[in-house]
Amino acid sequence: MTEEIETGAPAAEDGQGLIEKLTSLAKRRGFVFPSSEIYGGLNAVWDYGPLGVRLRRRVRESWWRRVVEGRSDVEGIECSILMNPRVWVASGHVDAFTDPLVDCLGRCHMRWRQDQLDGDRCPNCGGALSPARRFNLLFRTFVGPVEDDTARVYLRPETAQGMFVNFKNVLQSTRQRLPFGIAQIGRSFRNEISPGNFIFRSREFEQMEMEWFCSPGEDERWFDYWCQDQLQWFQDLGIRRENLRLRPHAGEELAHYALGATDIEYRFPFGWGELEGIARRGDYDLRRHQEVSGRDLGYPDPITGQSLLPYVVEPAVGVDRTALTVLLDAYDEEEVRGERRVVLRLAPSVAPYEVAVLPLSKHADLVGPARQVAAELRGALATDYDETQSIGRRYRRQDEIGTPLAVTVDFESLQDHAATIRERDSMEQVRVGFDRLLEVCREKLGLAG
Amino acid sequence: MTEEIETGAPAAEDGQGLIEKLTSLAKRRGFVFPSSEIYGGLNAVWDYGPLGVRLRRRVRESWWRRVVEGRSDVEGIECSILMNPRVWVASGHVDAFTDPLVDCLGRCHMRWRQDQLDGDRCPNCGGALSPARRFNLLFRTFVGPVEDDTARVYLRPETAQGMFVNFKNVLQSTRQRLPFGIAQIGRSFRNEISPGNFIFRSREFEQMEMEWFCSPGEDERWFDYWCQDQLQWFQDLGIRRENLRLRPHAGEELAHYALGATDIEYRFPFGWGELEGIARRGDYDLRRHQEVSGRDLGYPDPITGQSLLPYVVEPAVGVDRTALTVLLDAYDEEEVRGERRVVLRLAPSVAPYEVAVLPLSKHADLVGPARQVAAELRGALATDYDETQSIGRRYRRQDEIGTPLAVTVDFESLQDHAATIRERDSMEQVRVGFDRLLEVCREKLGLAG
Repeated sequence: MTEEIETGAPAAEDGQGLIEKLTSLAKRRGFVFPSSEIYGGLNAVWDYGPLGVRLRRRVRESWWRRVVEGRSDVEGIECSILMNPRVWVASGHVDAFTDPLVDCLGRCHMRWRQDQLDGDRCPNCGGALSPARRFNLLFRTFVGPVEDDTARVYLRPETAQGMFVNFKNVLQSTRQRLPFGIAQIGRSFRNEISPGNFIFRSREFEQMEMEWFCSPGEDERWFDYWCQDQLQWFQDLGIRRENLRLRPHAGEELAHYALGATDIEYRFPFGWGELEGIARRGDYDLRRHQEVSGRDLGYPDPITGQSLLPYVVEPAVGVDRTALTVLLDAYDEEEVRGERRVVLRLAPSVAPYEVAVLPLSKHADLVGPARQVAAELRGALATDYDETQSIGRRYRRQDEIGTPLAVTVDFESLQDHAATIRERDSMEQVRVGFDRLLEVCREKLGLAG
Repeated sequence: MTEEIETGAPAAEDGQGLIEKLTSLAKRRGFVFPSSEIYGGLNAVWDYGPLGVRLRRRVRESWWRRVVEGRSDVEGIECSILMNPRVWVASGHVDAFTDPLVDCLGRCHMRWRQDQLDGDRCPNCGGALSPARRFNLLFRTFVGPVEDDTARVYLRPETAQGMFVNFKNVLQSTRQRLPFGIAQIGRSFRNEISPGNFIFRSREFEQMEMEWFCSPGEDERWFDYWCQDQLQWFQDLGIRRENLRLRPHAGEELAHYALGATDIEYRFPFGWGELEGIARRGDYDLRRHQEVSGRDLGYPDPITGQSLLPYVVEPAVGVDRTALTVLLDAYDEEEVRGERRVVLRLAPSVAPYEVAVLPLSKHADLVGPARQVAAELRGALATDYDETQSIGRRYRRQDEIGTPLAVTVDFESLQDHAATIRERDSMEQVRVGFDRLLEVCREKLGLAG
């Protein structure tokens, strides 16, 4: 998975402002915190708070259901982050997974990625820059008590190689025949020289990758299939089509292993950037692992009986970047009766909470029935409950965290055994009897039928 | 989370044999593979195959639903594996997270954990042993291009500290008041000197931890509550009560931070061993982080208005070890009509597949309807489909992977629009109409009502 961003496109005027506003909302409301913040953080590493975890879990589950569980031709695996180091020799990462690094020779001594600079002087202090050297992005550590070359291992920079080195194990332990896929969700690590843009590019991130093995010659058709499939998936998460585009890689930007590649790009505030990479990897990976390991990784063709190396199509997407995109695309501000309203217009399928139950006040007569309503909804829907502060502030909070529906229990509820359902986007309210609350909520969330 | 195993208890006679049989089954059927196996593996690191992932996902979901989603007083977070290194200074890991390491001075030069040895000579070659030195179990790496002390970070050895350093962030972004919990599922890393026993003790493993914050003085009551809660959880996973026990730590084995601790132990083939640790941590962690970070981590008491440091109760359990326990407890062999039958008697709630659909043969007349049945069940149940090999071999495979029910479509099905449901444990068969298959399967799986 390459993670380049095209910065040539014109960014929205308030682009960086939007990222800053979202970063602030994310911390205040519990989506994303800077990692180890009480110690000043760790550069470009992030923690996910209660709402961020809910969003991430729904993104992961949606992808897993679409790509693995909902199909009979894709198997899931979970590999270790520490792998035998020869994996990364075979994949080319030990030799070639580098960025060109330059040092400022002037006053500030800052480090930069040369390929992201326009000129040959330091963007910070205007100093001259050193010649570029190749900096390897693999994190290194040592297994066992002795820190020498024989004990050196790497933190995986991608999950993909786990699928290649386990290809034979999966083939032999399942009933799969070509074409079929192996998929994995897990953390990866890259010692980036210039990470940034909030959770867009982090040193630690979570990938969702699938290697689709097929007969040589069928990979172009499958490549088109997976491009369209994944483009649809982003739309199912609620991301607007006009903010998405497919961008085929030009020949000169193709990775050394790729026969072809297309990025699904999103119109980020800082320009069009990669959201997902889909690559035709040919038989590069299996062939390399076969050469370096000396093991036969061929697929026995059931008709000819001959061993062949399948071709591979790889859709690779990040959980963090998808979460960022979902949040950015949902962020909205509007004037309501002279006040500014911030609202995350999240699709119900990714909203941290589907419904919030709010007693009009903390009055004991209301809190009892409201908690009862919340407990009943919680069995079927992701349900928040909040009895603090004024009802206006609580509506604003639910708008900011993207909860599609709020159910308010008021003093009238004690007579009519009904509550008010308020819709986040339209702010329209409708009165519904307690016994029909779940049914009406499900309808409004698109879960009916 | 300490992970000690008591080896004094008498092991079952064929104890190690059972671990070996399970390791073999796990690889053959796709539960667990040695990591990077084509390169000779990486010591004490494992990958999970298609069935292992299904089992792990169900274990994780069961815990998360019980401890987080099913409650309103626990919040989930997901922290980075790389954290600011001062976290591990404050927690005591940089100074004190060590094991006593001795080297063989004889022929073999092997390394051992002194506290796991009986004598003072090498168990492998009988050579003399070096004096013990303290070996720190933290994996180290460097962030950024310069490998010096200022760039050194650690791979987290536990997820727990993520909850402590985010205590204030979670408190401020949610509506929680004491008592409440913060929970996390994620990978941790320990550079163990002597890992082993399959996935019992690995250098990379996945934890499920929850920090329960309560008023000082209430922690003993909550400690008892969580001991009982977690003991019940293991039984809900199908683990037999007689193979579980609570073992309170004696005073001298308590960790430096603990006011009290109890292990939930399982009767492993190699003796009683820790399955889950539940500890009373007092205010040790919040106090330490407050001291080292200089930040106020107090909880503002809503009645007195005064700031207090809550006390903490921590249930901490491993995904890998729970999966191992579930598999060991389910493993059974029996004689059936003169043949040996291996069967995993997994509870339906953790079985990789709930039902398998098997056409009696590969005949085209059967394959069509059988696939149709599988597709319909797949919407509601974890459904396998298998049309390879003889029906006898396919039953044996489903027994070995623990699928509770097999639905067989035969030639009679073409007339009576019914199939045979075979129960894994009793091997009893019952004929059920296509239109009632899902309903009857759900009943037999305990999902009805």
